[in-house]
Amino acid sequence: MSVPAVRRGRPGYDQRQILEIAVQVFIEHGYDATSVSSLAERLGLSKSALYHHYASKERLLELALDEAMGSLEAVLHEPGATVGPAGDRLEHVLRGAVRVLVDKLAFVTLLLRVRGNSDVERAALERRRAFDDQVTVLVRAAQAEGSVRADIGASVATRLLFGMVNSIVEWYRPTGPEGAAELADDVLAVALDGLRTH
Amino acid sequence: MSVPAVRRGRPGYDQRQILEIAVQVFIEHGYDATSVSSLAERLGLSKSALYHHYASKERLLELALDEAMGSLEAVLHEPGATVGPAGDRLEHVLRGAVRVLVDKLAFVTLLLRVRGNSDVERAALERRRAFDDQVTVLVRAAQAEGSVRADIGASVATRLLFGMVNSIVEWYRPTGPEGAAELADDVLAVALDGLRTH
Repeated sequence: MSVPAVRRGRPGYDQRQILEIAVQVFIEHGYDATSVSSLAERLGLSKSALYHHYASKERLLELALDEAMGSLEAVLHEPGATVGPAGDRLEHVLRGAVRVLVDKLAFVTLLLRVRGNSDVERAALERRRAFDDQVTVLVRAAQAEGSVRADIGASVATRLLFGMVNSIVEWYRPTGPEGAAELADDVLAVALDGLRTH
Repeated sequence: MSVPAVRRGRPGYDQRQILEIAVQVFIEHGYDATSVSSLAERLGLSKSALYHHYASKERLLELALDEAMGSLEAVLHEPGATVGPAGDRLEHVLRGAVRVLVDKLAFVTLLLRVRGNSDVERAALERRRAFDDQVTVLVRAAQAEGSVRADIGASVATRLLFGMVNSIVEWYRPTGPEGAAELADDVLAVALDGLRTH
């Protein structure tokens, strides 16, 4: 029985790496402007080899958006987001959202650029709206318990908070785990206590 | 001498309206994906009539980005941004930026979507960077005078502030002048004093 030959040279990309590179290409050139041919070329694969891994370009988008949204939604189900005073739960959700953005920077960047041009995109926008609604309910509960100021509407407050959080994808570049934790501290500090000295 | 006939029916668009509609089309379909033909069609003009008003699609983009950036830069030169304690000047700049975003919602939306795919886009990004740098200098001055907390880097603080401010283009829809002033109050409240009750 012969020993299988060791594969030499550049190894092929696995399923996961193909998804990650596709997400990168979608971000650089725009999803609509990216053809399967150009994607295959970037991966050094034939189109049929690419189709062997993923049924379509849209399937890659769907998986990427699902991973980004799924990670954000998971934060809402963590004990820190479901047990305790609403103010503490809100803080947990904000910190968790920053963590997801840093961990899944490219996937969330893609999610935030989605404009609703297809069923897959509209489904992702719908999940984003449902996520925002759940955070708004949390802000309202924190206002009712007195831990969050009630002179700003819960819906506007949620949008401003996530405006700040989501902007991270525009400028944050990973530099190490400390970077991410410090970033979350900074976001929490501005969001909860503001920039002004007291 | 005959009296000129009164023009009946739908009047043609003037120079300004063409620019505004073009900006709207760029936002809806993406600048790169918008052809001069589709733009002319949307305006109910022939391509040559459109070229009579503007030399190119890029010229429309350039004017739109210049108007958005020019309005933001003008805020930095207002007396409220140049005279007095740095903390007050920062507050003036944030309020002014919200005002510009609301007044020029479409133009600023386009500016914030620019990714640097041409010289015109790169020039706009360069002006945005210079604007951010000037705000960062202001934040640093406010930290030095003790009116803004110094435990957050001036650069990160500026980015979080403008993340919040810029997010307005994603969800704000004009409902009247009170809307804009209240929105500025809410942004200032969150940015300077935070959401937490004290």
